[in-house]
Amino acid sequence: MLAVDHDERRRRIAEVTVDVIAREGLEAATIRRIAAELGGPTKIITHYFADKQELLVWAYRSLAEQSERYLTEVIARDPTDIVSALMAMTAVDESQTLLWRVYIAFWDRAARDPFFAELQRTQINLALKRIAEIIRARNGEREDVESVSQRLNALVQGISLLALADKERWSPERVRGTLADEVEVVLGRASARV
Amino acid sequence: MLAVDHDERRRRIAEVTVDVIAREGLEAATIRRIAAELGGPTKIITHYFADKQELLVWAYRSLAEQSERYLTEVIARDPTDIVSALMAMTAVDESQTLLWRVYIAFWDRAARDPFFAELQRTQINLALKRIAEIIRARNGEREDVESVSQRLNALVQGISLLALADKERWSPERVRGTLADEVEVVLGRASARV
Repeated sequence: MLAVDHDERRRRIAEVTVDVIAREGLEAATIRRIAAELGGPTKIITHYFADKQELLVWAYRSLAEQSERYLTEVIARDPTDIVSALMAMTAVDESQTLLWRVYIAFWDRAARDPFFAELQRTQINLALKRIAEIIRARNGEREDVESVSQRLNALVQGISLLALADKERWSPERVRGTLADEVEVVLGRASARV
Repeated sequence: MLAVDHDERRRRIAEVTVDVIAREGLEAATIRRIAAELGGPTKIITHYFADKQELLVWAYRSLAEQSERYLTEVIARDPTDIVSALMAMTAVDESQTLLWRVYIAFWDRAARDPFFAELQRTQINLALKRIAEIIRARNGEREDVESVSQRLNALVQGISLLALADKERWSPERVRGTLADEVEVVLGRASARV
């Protein structure tokens, strides 16, 4: 029973940390502040995390897992539906926009923190791997799987960045249209070679 | 003579501020710190800027002007060379990477600061306007100028974001190749309609 409780507490700490970062930025997410949000002494955080860096790493990992779970669900519905999978990676709805805000905060941090830079590269490589798998499921093996994955991932990143700044312009319909168009052009063209 | 001196001082303040943000983040760019970097009392900053927000706005504007000047130079060489123009907007060399790091810091800030969010939208619209002009110079008027500009801009943003995290993967050659490929596909395809 105790183990379950600890998991739940750590999950709740991550949730609150991500929420504070999304609303007020990485600087605001101190151990003192997260403890206050949870209505307890700092010990409820320091019991699990030695310092702010450990807390942030945990929040980042939880964020990444959350994105990964959502993507896995979408892919399970149709392993060849690349447009829906790319949509699942993009800042289109409210909860994805919140996650993306936090990602951008970590992206900024990664510029000056080699540990976060490494975490970030791991995440990018995971995204590329997932995209490549869907391309193979959809179009079979192709020589350009890696370069196409890179390009689609770049578009997902760029649209998300722009959508954070201008939600009205990048409506879910427009995002889907842009991604679908790109997929058709990039994978349509080359599928003739298969 | 005095007016020239003031311009030079303001220019130098912006330069130092951008540099501190790139190396240590937005939080580090305090009036006290920038004054110290310039080797003077805080008055040398507060003479021009009432508070940190004004200083940051000035730094952002200087950054935007610097990018705009560089882009204008590249476009002047060949107003139809869209790949080179897009390259000039992307984080490919050291000085552009530094500017992009600072942009990402401001992007993070814009999530919680309506004033910076507005500045950012102005910058995005300016970028879209420039891309649209080059498309018209290259392909003539087209119905899809706006949507193509959006898509190319999204790719520029996405590649830059990824290049910040993984410089080796996104070499200038690869960036150029990806952008050229996209331009060929998007504008080549539709130029038949002109």
